[in-house]
Amino acid sequence: MSNKFIIAIDLGGTNLKIALLNSRYKIIAKELLSTKKFTKSTLIQAIIKSVNKILEEHGIARKSLLGVGLGVPGPINFKKGIIYFMPNISGWHNVPLRAILRKRLALAVFLDNDANLMSLAEYRLGAAKGAENAVCLTLGTGVGGGVIINRQLYRGSGSVAGEIGHIPVNLTGPRCNCGGRACLEAYIGNSKIEKVAERIFKEKINLAQLSALARKNNRKAIKVWDEVGSILGSALVGVINLLNPDCIVIGGGVAGAGRVLFNKIREIIRGQAMPIHRRAVKVHRAKLGADAGLIGAALLVDENAG
Amino acid sequence: MSNKFIIAIDLGGTNLKIALLNSRYKIIAKELLSTKKFTKSTLIQAIIKSVNKILEEHGIARKSLLGVGLGVPGPINFKKGIIYFMPNISGWHNVPLRAILRKRLALAVFLDNDANLMSLAEYRLGAAKGAENAVCLTLGTGVGGGVIINRQLYRGSGSVAGEIGHIPVNLTGPRCNCGGRACLEAYIGNSKIEKVAERIFKEKINLAQLSALARKNNRKAIKVWDEVGSILGSALVGVINLLNPDCIVIGGGVAGAGRVLFNKIREIIRGQAMPIHRRAVKVHRAKLGADAGLIGAALLVDENAG
Repeated sequence: MSNKFIIAIDLGGTNLKIALLNSRYKIIAKELLSTKKFTKSTLIQAIIKSVNKILEEHGIARKSLLGVGLGVPGPINFKKGIIYFMPNISGWHNVPLRAILRKRLALAVFLDNDANLMSLAEYRLGAAKGAENAVCLTLGTGVGGGVIINRQLYRGSGSVAGEIGHIPVNLTGPRCNCGGRACLEAYIGNSKIEKVAERIFKEKINLAQLSALARKNNRKAIKVWDEVGSILGSALVGVINLLNPDCIVIGGGVAGAGRVLFNKIREIIRGQAMPIHRRAVKVHRAKLGADAGLIGAALLVDENAG
Repeated sequence: MSNKFIIAIDLGGTNLKIALLNSRYKIIAKELLSTKKFTKSTLIQAIIKSVNKILEEHGIARKSLLGVGLGVPGPINFKKGIIYFMPNISGWHNVPLRAILRKRLALAVFLDNDANLMSLAEYRLGAAKGAENAVCLTLGTGVGGGVIINRQLYRGSGSVAGEIGHIPVNLTGPRCNCGGRACLEAYIGNSKIEKVAERIFKEKINLAQLSALARKNNRKAIKVWDEVGSILGSALVGVINLLNPDCIVIGGGVAGAGRVLFNKIREIIRGQAMPIHRRAVKVHRAKLGADAGLIGAALLVDENAG
C-alpha cells in the first residue's frame, strides 16, 4: 500500500461514476454522470474532463496519484487494456481504452471487468476477506461473477473467466443473450425474476416490492424467491463441486431479498453439494454495496501500479 | 527433475498397480494385483511387500529413490495425506495412509486423488502440455476431473476440487451416488450410457461394442454418442464460461468412442459457449492412456519431494 491517492471509475450501462480515493480506499469525492447521454468519444472526453476537475478541486498533483482504475461492463483483454465490447453500451468494439486514457491523462491506467473488480473488493475488504478460494456473484440485469483462486483474482486464459451467469443450469431452456442456452442469467436476471413474479402473483410486481413482501413473509413472494434460490443454488452446487471454494459472496440488487433467498440457497447447497465440499464453504451476502466497483477499481491500481 | 527412481502406485476399485519409474517417468517395472481380494490391512501389507520386492529385484537402494506417489479413487486430505473414504472400496474411513506407508517403508510418500494425478500427467507430459489453464476429465464408471490453474494442479480449499462429474446439468433429474441430483455422472457414467444404448437399440449392448459400431457409422450408436456428447458438452460450456481455460482433455474408456463423441462435444461448445471463451479453448483426447495414473503419481513425487 502506497500513501498516494487513486482515481476509480465505474462505467455502468446507466451511470458513469468517477471517484477520488485515499490510500486507505476511502472515497473522498465522487461524481455521477449518466452514461446514456454520451457517445463513445464524448464519454472518453467526459472521463478526462472529470478526472482533471476532481484533481484540481482537491489540489492533487499527478505525482501524488498512484493511477486510475476503471471497471467496465463487458469482456476485456486485461493485458492489453482493450475493451472487446459492452453488451449494454453500443459503439464499443476492440477499443484500446487503457492506451487512450494513459496518453491523454498522463497517468497509469488499469482496466478490468466490473464483476472482477466487485469480487476483488469483496475479497480484499469485504465479505470474502481472508478466504483462500472464493466465488463472488452480482445479481442484476445480468448475473456477473468473479473467481478468487489462491488469494488472487483469477482471470483465465483470455481474461474472461468468472461468467457464472452463463453456466447452463438445464439441458433444455431459453436462449440467452450470450448466444448460449439455459444459462443461469436466462432464469434469474432481474427481468426473468419479474416474469416469475408475474406468473405467481398474476400481476406485474417489481423487485423492490418483491423483496419487501418477502421480508413480511408474503407467501407468493417467498415462492418467487424460493424458485430463484433453487436455480441459483443448483448452479452454485456445480461451482462448489468443481472449485471447492471456502467462500461464496452474493451481491447486487437481488441480494436485497435477504434471508429468504439466502436460506433457500444454503438449503440447496446442504442438500446437494458433496459432503466435504459443502462443509468447506460459507455463503455470505456482499458487504460493500454499490461502491464495490469503485473500491475494486482502486484496489486494481494498488495491485498493478508501480 | 532429479536423477532418482520413483515408485508409483495406482489404487483402483478393480486393480492395484505398483510400478517403478526412472527419472524420465518411464515405467521400468509394473506389478498388477486385484484390489478385490484384499481387506484394508492386507492391502497395505501387499503394497509394502510389493514395493520392497520391486526394489530388491532391480537392485535399487532406498537412497536412489525419490519417493513413493500414490493415487486413490476418492477424496483425500492432501496436506495431511489422509484418505477420507473411497466410494468403491469399503472399509476405508479417515485412514492416514501417507503416515502409515512413510513409517513402514522409510520413504517419502505422497497421496492424491486419481483424477488429479491423471490431470497432472496429461498437463506435464500429455495432451494439455503447455496449457496455462486446463480442465481434464476421465470418463468411466464415474466421471472424474482435475483442474490446472496458472500452470499448477488446483486442489481447492479442502483438497477436493475438480469434481466435474458432480456438476448438476439439469434442474430436475436422477439422484446421484454423491447425494446430489442430476449430476453429470448420473447421465454419462458407464452404466448410464449403457442404459441409453439399451433404450435406443432395444437390447443390451456394451460400451466397447457401442464405440466399435459408432466407428462404422452405425446410426443408433451415433445417436447414443450424440446424446452423451450433448450432455457432456453442456456441462463443459459451464466450465468454459466459468474458468476460461485454454485446454480441455477428455480420457477414460468412453473417450474410445473417438471422433463421433468429440465432434458432438465440440459442436455444443461452438454453439453455446461465449464467443471469446470458445475461441480460447481446445478440446483434446487424453494421450497417456491407462498408465496416466502411474505417471501422475510419479510426477506428484517429483513436485513435492526433497
